[in-house]
Order: sequence, then C-alpha cells, then structure tokens
Amino acid sequence: MKRKIGIVGATGYTGVELLRLLVNHPEVEITCVTSREHAGSRVDAMFPNLRGYVDLAFTAPSDDALSACDLVFFATPNGIAMKSAQTLLDAGTKVIDLAADFRIKDIAVWEKWYGMQHASPQLVEEAVYGLPELNRAQIRDARLVANPGCYPTAVTLGLLPLVESGLIDVAGIIADTKSGVSGAGRKAEVHTLLAEAGDNFKAYAVAGHRHQPEIAQTLSTIARTSISPVFVPHLLPMIRGIHATLYAMLTSEADLQQLYTARYAHEPFVDVMPAGSHPETRSVRGANVCRMAIHRPGNTARVVILSVIDNLVKGAAGQAVQNMNLMLGLAEDTALKQPGLLP
Amino acid sequence: MKRKIGIVGATGYTGVELLRLLVNHPEVEITCVTSREHAGSRVDAMFPNLRGYVDLAFTAPSDDALSACDLVFFATPNGIAMKSAQTLLDAGTKVIDLAADFRIKDIAVWEKWYGMQHASPQLVEEAVYGLPELNRAQIRDARLVANPGCYPTAVTLGLLPLVESGLIDVAGIIADTKSGVSGAGRKAEVHTLLAEAGDNFKAYAVAGHRHQPEIAQTLSTIARTSISPVFVPHLLPMIRGIHATLYAMLTSEADLQQLYTARYAHEPFVDVMPAGSHPETRSVRGANVCRMAIHRPGNTARVVILSVIDNLVKGAAGQAVQNMNLMLGLAEDTALKQPGLLP
Amino acid sequence: MKRKIGIVGATGYTGVELLRLLVNHPEVEITCVTSREHAGSRVDAMFPNLRGYVDLAFTAPSDDALSACDLVFFATPNGIAMKSAQTLLDAGTKVIDLAADFRIKDIAVWEKWYGMQHASPQLVEEAVYGLPELNRAQIRDARLVANPGCYPTAVTLGLLPLVESGLIDVAGIIADTKSGVSGAGRKAEVHTLLAEAGDNFKAYAVAGHRHQPEIAQTLSTIARTSISPVFVPHLLPMIRGIHATLYAMLTSEADLQQLYTARYAHEPFVDVMPAGSHPETRSVRGANVCRMAIHRPGNTARVVILSVIDNLVKGAAGQAVQNMNLMLGLAEDTALKQPGLLP
Amino acid sequence: MKRKIGIVGATGYTGVELLRLLVNHPEVEITCVTSREHAGSRVDAMFPNLRGYVDLAFTAPSDDALSACDLVFFATPNGIAMKSAQTLLDAGTKVIDLAADFRIKDIAVWEKWYGMQHASPQLVEEAVYGLPELNRAQIRDARLVANPGCYPTAVTLGLLPLVESGLIDVAGIIADTKSGVSGAGRKAEVHTLLAEAGDNFKAYAVAGHRHQPEIAQTLSTIARTSISPVFVPHLLPMIRGIHATLYAMLTSEADLQQLYTARYAHEPFVDVMPAGSHPETRSVRGANVCRMAIHRPGNTARVVILSVIDNLVKGAAGQAVQNMNLMLGLAEDTALKQPGLLP
Repeated sequence: MKRKIGIVGATGYTGVELLRLLVNHPEVEITCVTSREHAGSRVDAMFPNLRGYVDLAFTAPSDDALSACDLVFFATPNGIAMKSAQTLLDAGTKVIDLAADFRIKDIAVWEKWYGMQHASPQLVEEAVYGLPELNRAQIRDARLVANPGCYPTAVTLGLLPLVESGLIDVAGIIADTKSGVSGAGRKAEVHTLLAEAGDNFKAYAVAGHRHQPEIAQTLSTIARTSISPVFVPHLLPMIRGIHATLYAMLTSEADLQQLYTARYAHEPFVDVMPAGSHPETRSVRGANVCRMAIHRPGNTARVVILSVIDNLVKGAAGQAVQNMNLMLGLAEDTALKQPGLLP
Repeated sequence: MKRKIGIVGATGYTGVELLRLLVNHPEVEITCVTSREHAGSRVDAMFPNLRGYVDLAFTAPSDDALSACDLVFFATPNGIAMKSAQTLLDAGTKVIDLAADFRIKDIAVWEKWYGMQHASPQLVEEAVYGLPELNRAQIRDARLVANPGCYPTAVTLGLLPLVESGLIDVAGIIADTKSGVSGAGRKAEVHTLLAEAGDNFKAYAVAGHRHQPEIAQTLSTIARTSISPVFVPHLLPMIRGIHATLYAMLTSEADLQQLYTARYAHEPFVDVMPAGSHPETRSVRGANVCRMAIHRPGNTARVVILSVIDNLVKGAAGQAVQNMNLMLGLAEDTALKQPGLLP
Repeated sequence: MKRKIGIVGATGYTGVELLRLLVNHPEVEITCVTSREHAGSRVDAMFPNLRGYVDLAFTAPSDDALSACDLVFFATPNGIAMKSAQTLLDAGTKVIDLAADFRIKDIAVWEKWYGMQHASPQLVEEAVYGLPELNRAQIRDARLVANPGCYPTAVTLGLLPLVESGLIDVAGIIADTKSGVSGAGRKAEVHTLLAEAGDNFKAYAVAGHRHQPEIAQTLSTIARTSISPVFVPHLLPMIRGIHATLYAMLTSEADLQQLYTARYAHEPFVDVMPAGSHPETRSVRGANVCRMAIHRPGNTARVVILSVIDNLVKGAAGQAVQNMNLMLGLAEDTALKQPGLLP
Repeated sequence: MKRKIGIVGATGYTGVELLRLLVNHPEVEITCVTSREHAGSRVDAMFPNLRGYVDLAFTAPSDDALSACDLVFFATPNGIAMKSAQTLLDAGTKVIDLAADFRIKDIAVWEKWYGMQHASPQLVEEAVYGLPELNRAQIRDARLVANPGCYPTAVTLGLLPLVESGLIDVAGIIADTKSGVSGAGRKAEVHTLLAEAGDNFKAYAVAGHRHQPEIAQTLSTIARTSISPVFVPHLLPMIRGIHATLYAMLTSEADLQQLYTARYAHEPFVDVMPAGSHPETRSVRGANVCRMAIHRPGNTARVVILSVIDNLVKGAAGQAVQNMNLMLGLAEDTALKQPGLLP
C-alpha cells in the first residue's frame, strides 16, 4: 500500500518541485496539497506542467487531513512548520520542513537571524539536519527532519572532506556563492523581476545572510571547533542553479582528489568530477545531485573547490524526497534517478 | 536659458529612461522629480546608473512646483495625468502624458478599456497623439500631448505607408507582436519575475488588449474607415524591445520598398532597411528609432512587415523627448542621437 | 530481453536528449553511440549531465555495429541517414531519422530545399512521417520513420482539427512561429552566440524556410488540396521551446473547443487547455507534449491557435522515442511520462 | 580640425563599441576601419545599430591608410598589433592596442602565456599600461598605450587603494571574478552559444588565466613586492558586465570608506558607493565607469571589495577612448559622459 503524503504550501517553487518529483514515485501517493490562499483551485491550473499528472485541488490546511498522512512536507515560508509540527508528530505523522524552522540548534541564534520567537523550542533538539551524506543513520530514524538550505547544501558538501580530515585552516574558509533567482521564491518583489535581475549580476547581503550561521553550525560540529566562514552570496541572471566557489588553505599535504573520491564513493547523489573539471550548473538542472571538482591553482597550499547543485532539487525538494525515502524505509534513490536537463 | 522640466512619477522605467536621456540635453534642466512614495530620497539611490548625472531628490508632487516648469512629463500609471493636466495647462505649463489618459478620443471606449471614469474629458479632444511621423505639425503647436503606447508605435509605423496608400485590404490586418518585460513596468508581480518570465515565452491577452483600440483608432483615422486589426501580444524573456510582425494582403500591386523608403525619407527616427532584411531588437536597444523591413514571401499578395523598437525609448521616453523637442521649438533630434547598444 | 538501440551522431542536442530519455527506458539498452569526430571519448565527458547514467564511449560509425541493433536513431545533420538507411533496413534494423532526409515525398522539392541529391530515393515513398497523432497505425508497421521537424510538429498539431474538419479557408493560414536557439543545433556559429542571440529577438528566413514545404505537404494531404501557408519563424532568446501562433479564418461556424478536445481526447501527448488559456513554453520544458489553446478574439471568424512544444522533445527526441515505442510494439508512453520542468 | 582615427579589426565587439562611442565624439573623425575578411562591405551592414551613424565600408588593412591617421586603435586578436605598431609609430601615428601585445613587461612571461614569439620586443618597455587612474601622466605623453584587460581593470581598481596604502597582507588576495560572454569575443565557438552558456554558470581556467599575470604585474609594481593573487574567473549567462569580488586581510586598521573615497575623489570614471552598497553590473551597462563598494562582514580583518565594470566599455573600448583623449590632449571625458542603460 502506498504511503500517504501531504504538502503544506505547495504554491511556491519547492512545492511544485516536490510534486514534479513525487508524481512518478511508485511507493507514495499525494493525498493532500494545502494552500490557504488558493484553496479550491486546481493544482494544475497554477502549474500547467502538472496537467495530466496531478488531479488534485488545493485545500485549506487542516490538522486532521494532514495527520492522516504518513509524512508531511512543509514547503512554506519560515515560521509555519514550527506551529504545526508537534501536532502532526503527536499523531504519528513524520515531518520534513523545507524551511529553516528546525535547522539551527541554538534557539537564540535562530531567533536573531529569523526575527521571530520560536514556537516549538522543544522540538529543535530532536530535529535531524537532513543532509544524508552527513546524518544518514539519524535521518532513517527521525520523526522530524530539517531539510538543509540550498547554499548550505552546496557549501557543506563541498567542504566536508576537507573539514572532516582536518587538513585545512578552518579560520580562513571563504564561500563565494552564486544562485539563480528561484532561490528567492515565488514572491511578488521588485528586485527579482526579470527586468531587474535579468542581464544583471550583483552580490547581496554581504553584511550577513541567514545561511551563514547554518553553514557555520554544521562545519563547527564536524570540526569540533567554532568555524565562521566568510559567506558572500550573489544573484545570477538565471532561474535554477547554485555554484559555490570555496577557498581554503591546506595546513598539511594530501591527495585531495583521492580524499574526495573516497569520501563520496558510495554516495548516490554526490559526483566528484575528474581533477581539473569545471562543473556547470546546467549539468544538474532538475537533478538531485551535487557535482564538484577540486583545484590547486599554482600547486600552492590554496585549495579551490567548485560545487554545483540545482537549488530546487538537491538544494530543496530533491533532498527532501531523499530524506523521505530514508525516513519511510524506501530505497534512497527512488524517484530521483533522472539526469539533468541539458541543454 | 534652459527650459525647466518636471517629471511626475519618476520611479518607473519610463521615468528613469527620461532621466537618462535628459541629463545630456543641452537645452533643458530637470528641476522637479516627484514621487509620493519616495519623497526625500535621492534619485540616484534608486537608480545608481544615474550617480554623477542627477543630483536631485524625489519630492512629493505639488502643483506649485510643477507649474513652475515649462513642461511636465507624466511617467505615471494610467489615471494620474488626467487629474493634474488642466491645472498645469492653465498655469502655462505644457504636458506630455506617457500613460494612456489622452490617447483615445472616444471617451466611452477609453473608460471601458481602462476601467475608470475620465477626470478631464474636456481635454481629450485637444490632446495631440504624439506620433511625430503622423502629427508633427500639431505636436509643435500642442499644449498637451498623449505619448503613444509602445505596441501602437511599432505597429502603426510599420503599417502607415500601406494604410495611407490604400494598397491593402484593411479588414485583414494581423499584428503578431512580442515585447520584453520592461513593458509591464517596475511593479512587484509574480508573472514578470525572472523565475516566471525568464526562459519562457507565451501569448497573453489574446481576448483583448488596451493597445488594440489605440491602434485601431489611428489606422482608422488614416484610412478613413473603421479598422480593427487582430492584435496578439506575446511576452519575450528579455528586458527591452518590441518586435511586430505585421501581415496584410495587397489589393493592388506596388513597389513597397520604394513606398516605404519615400514615406520615411525625411524621418530622423524611422529606418527602412534594405529589402530582405530582418531587423533585430538589439539594434535599437537604448535608441530612439523604429527599424523595419518589408517582405513578400513567395511573391504573392501577402505582405509581411517586420518592425522593431525599444519599448522604453521610441516606445516611450525617447518619443516623449522627441515630442518635447518639437513642443519647445528645439531641434527634434536633440539628445536623441545615440546608436543602439549592441551587443 | 531488452531491445538494442544505436544512436548515430549523438554529439548534438537531439542526440544527448535521446540519451537522457532512454537511460530510464526499461525495455531498451543503448549499445552503440557513434561519432566520427569524438570516437574513443566518453559520452559523459561531453555531456556531464549523463555522468552515472551512461557508461559508454563514442565509437566510429560502423554498419556492422549498427546492424546488430534492433533500431537505430539518426541524430545527424541532413544527408547522412539517407546514405546508410538501406543497409540497415536490409539487415533487419529499423531506422528513425531525426533529420529531414525522408520527410518530403516529392524528391525534386526535397533536393531544391536541401541543396543535395537524394541518395536513397527508393526509400522515400516507404518512409512513414512520424507524427503519431496522424499516422499511428503506419508507424507501428514501419521499418523507416521520418521524424517530423520541430516547427512542423507544433504547427501541424495546432491546425490538424481545423484542416481535417474543413472548417477554415486553407488559403489564408498564417503560422507565426518562435523558437529557442537549441533548434539551430550544437554548431559553432556567430549568430547563435549568447552575445548575439541573447537579449534579442528577430525573424529569420522570411523569404523561405525548409519547414514550410514540410508543413505544406502534411496539411495538403489532410485537406486533399494544395495548401501553402505563410510561415514566419523567429529566434527567441532562450534555449528550449517553440510557440506557434496560428491564424485562420473560419468558413463555417463550430464549437472549436469541443472539436479540439474530441480530436485529441485519446492522445497521450497532446493537451488541449481550457478556452482562454495561454500555454507557456516552460510548461513543456523537457516534456513530450504539445500543449495548445484555441481563441476567437472579438468572436469574429478569425481563429487564433496557440501551440507550444519543447523543440528537443515533442519536436525531436521525445517524438522519436514515441515512434520507437510504437515500432517496437511497446507501450507508447514508456519513458515519456515526465512533467515539464517549471520553473 | 578633427583628428583622424583608424580602427583595425572593427568586426569584433570592442571594435563596434569603439565606433558606438566615437560617432558622437566632437573632436575626432573615423577615417579608416579595416577588416581583412570583410573589406568592401559596409560597416553598418554588419552592425545595424550604426545605421545612420557610420557611413564607411571596411577596407583591407594598409600601412599607408593607417599611417595617415593621428591615432590607430587595434581592436584585434592578440598578436596583430605587435606586427604593425613600429611602422605606425615611425610614421608619427599614435597607437592604442586593445589586445594584450604590450601589457606584460616581462617578454618571457608574455610569450609563455600567449603562446607566440613577440614581434616587437623593443616596444614593450616604452608602452604605457593604459589605466588612467594609475598612469595618467605617462598616458598623456605616450605614443603607444597597452589598453588593460577587462578583468585586470575591475580587479586592479578595486584593490588599488588597499595595495597602495600597504594595509593588507598581499599574499592572501583572492579575486573571484565573473564575466558576461561578450568578453570571449565575437567568435564562432560552441561553448559560448546561447544554448550552452545561457541559463548556466561555471568557473573556467581555474588552473591559470592570462589575466592573472597582468594583474600580478600591476599590483606587484604598486606594492614593490611580488604579488600573485588567486584569480578564479567564471562565465555569466549574460552579455555585458564584470563583477569582481575581492577578498583580502587587513594587517592594520583603517577607515576604508574614507581611504577609497579620497583615493578616487578626482577620478571621473571611478564611483565609490556608500558603505554597505552592492554595485550591480547593469548600473554600468554601456557606461565608462568602475563602480565599487567596500565591505567588512562581521567587522573582522577580512575586507570584501565589490567592483563592477562593463567589460566592453571601462574594460575595453571606453577606457581606450579615455586613453585616446589623454594622448590627444583632449578633455578626458569627451564622448564618455553617458549614464548606464538601466533596466
């Protein structure tokens, strides 16, 4: 019997992407797709790419309907999942939050960066940070998963082997990151209009971005020391894709290509390219993979890691489905074996 | 002494484009740039391309300040200019409305398409439709000019020689038009986000678009018979540029290349390309010109006219400056002699 | 046992798209991927989106290797398939040509438009035009299928119900079509550089385009009278997607929405949208579907049909896989049930 | 009397951009525009944006015709100017090379990076590196100017005040740079097709790029010590614009905003934005300006400088015209006072 799946807030980009991935999942059935604003209208009227695949209308969020699901995704803005998660968990429904409510363990830090009071502080410790390459076993057993942010996925996977191995000066990490505009969500705003963000490039939030403490927390945990990398995000004139260019200084010598290849040898969704490669964001368009390459320009101690993901897939909905597969005891790659759309 | 110029509503794309063109105009001085919402903030803080060129802050709209100008541009949404025009005209200030308030002579038609009651019906008859290639003499003498819409400029200039000459079946005109998204203005809306309108193409408003009656009015006046062309607009995944592909049937034979070349021989801002050319929107990017080419595929009676403009220049701000030059008795091409930005 | 599939010329966009679709096809196995120029190099080195999905190197084309396949796709330039098809057919291998070699029945017409002598005129009559919505039964029995052109697919499917029903004046058909640049192929040319074709829009080949006689042939066959529509292609500043805007005049009244819905009711890959819709190219990005909407602006006799496809999928590789499924007796939609990638 | 100007190799992007800027220059006259390949064809047939502005045909390069000019621009590939410069200088004609022939003082370094033997080593020492903000006086007196590369302009101007002041650890400089594709020139190549470079982002040449030694040379000269910054270029899916994100560590404390503002106070074409700003590439589209902002994220010793230019203007043709104005004793900003085209 198929597992019952609910999606809360499926009118944004991570919601429609969850639907795109799940319609071909042989083990699950989407039973409930909620939207307060669009309750009653058909899902495929808003997202015509789903015509013929989704025969559902949005419903108003209801604890009863959601509690009947085996697992519920929150594809909502920050601050929504934390209000309903306890009720669903109490009813035996597993929860994956694609927003940031359960990502940061230090509640004071979370409240500072997200500008609100946490509604379920008691769940924060239990929530598992949903990066399978780091926490696979815990995810399998989790009731509540905090799906990682898009930038943190690309940056953390790119740095993981270096930080785990203790080969670099963790005080000097720089993450120069670039994202397509779908990362800003499906919100009516001037600065992400095509006439504003198209044919244009800029940095933003250089003074501070919410994904910096998330990255810092994960890297610090791995390194068992406090790390606060420099994190500079930029906005790309395109829709999907994140490219992280990561800089670090080696403190001892090692064969990095071998290090990365070995670390990710059994990871289904991390692809270490041959030395000297330049991963392109389009190679992961629509695909649940983080593709990376390691460089040592000039053969100095300076390492440059290039890491790309589709922010809506491995950076959001795809990783959420990967987590769902683990939480439901299914094969981890179910419904996720699609090559990127190139060109 | 330089003429004093005011711009009402300079926070949209036609406003910033007026500023870009006027900062190098030797005969005018911008004395007043209004915005209710942004009063007090510097113009170049919103539009950093103007840093070093515009040393002004937005002010709240005031009849006194505007009445001290020789000429005022309304770069506002529809329905604003009609409320202030009479006051300014009474004070001896000339007015150019870049919106649609004074474009349609039949007030009932205007009210139907624009969904509001006209606030200055007494001015509609006096207002001159600001297409210099059609109404140059009247524009020179006008107090109030209705600057044409972007689509109507490209379509009307493309069809003008054919309709004037009586060579085509005016009942069968089709205007298949394509516009960059800046035509939708600098408004926070979902459908013009880069993540929605980028890498995408669609028709819109096929059932009816406000520019259809404007085109119909002008062509009908020229032809002295009622014309209602089929008008299908499409949204291009780019910022600037309109391409009109115009279809008509010849009712008698003629040398169309010669007809167009002769009609526009003395027009500074219409460029008839050699037979067989395909005008590109980028060739007019930032430039005040309508560039066109005439085709007779298969040498049948079917004519295909290709006509391109920059919707913000010849389709809005550039044409408004051209009208201003005429109204102020200046050389028509002052501040408008810039080639397009290619690539 | 899986069927053995060969792809000739898999270094272009239709080739990589065939691979993307076929790697998840449960009934076939790609055994041979040829490229004269890149023989010996890995397929996934050129197309890194296929890393982990395709473990093959390009081989030099060889009749022996290809003859061992059950079916061979030619994803080559025009003029290649016609040289090898007879040999393969004689060996019992079925052939689908994604180029134009077998699309035009009148060999003189073909030779004029394609500028070369036909190498296999004896096969032209046998070849089946691979539009399943028109020729499904013949495709099932075919040894040799001519996969339709991208524009012809969008235009023909858009007009099919009108022409079949005899409701329009077939002499007045206009097809104003717009295509993303991937339609031009993966060839080093100046005019399709990002710096040339990006942020730009133009018509091209207005005097005549090879897809016009292909469309004319199909429509004429359906109508049993000679039709030569006006066909004006344009180049969109985006990668994938064709939008056809089709104009016709009704000669008798009918419920067109009903006509189209009924005609395509059992077609798995044609989607007739509700009346008043505007199909977007992005809704079919990566998907094997032609999505369309019917309009009657002003409720006159003028019909406007909007029809979109992904030129590389329903306009090329997806339709080829659909044809392959039919030719091999497999379920027609195998490996083709993926929603479009939106946003 | 106007100065006579020649342009060699005006069929590329820097050539057409020189023409765009010079057609409105009141003190010069373009007398000679050469192209071996397109000799005889009209300039405005290739670049229709120049219709009405340039009434010239390309001519085959000839020493006689070029020697009759007061100044000649080489908008050619690398390795061309070095073959003709001596002849022109001997004839009293000044020369500006927009390519790299005279940028690197160490001829062995040049020959290694550019893969050819230098044809005029005797001129290398005399050639002045044409960055007016660094070498204004020498440019005024120069016969031969090496116009800087696009990346080096953005990077060097961004770092100049820090390096001059000795405030940073010059061993740790990182330049993470991003460029639009017009930087690759108007050459038929697969990797810069819209279908390849559009909707995509990647790093390239991480192992080594020709602009690295150019930047290293200039910074080393300023610092009077050998500097070899890490330089990682990336390709943006857009046409014009470079964004350099520059990382350095302060070794002593200073008011950087004040430092930059003071250093560039009298520079007409450098714009230091208010602290906390994020310069956008579109704000300099078509404009001869380098716009920058200084950041101290977290108020640590880490400095982040954001620097943007239009690679074809301040990064090439605009800077060349600025140099020409200096060399000819004209006002430095003649023909260069145009705001950027936004949106």
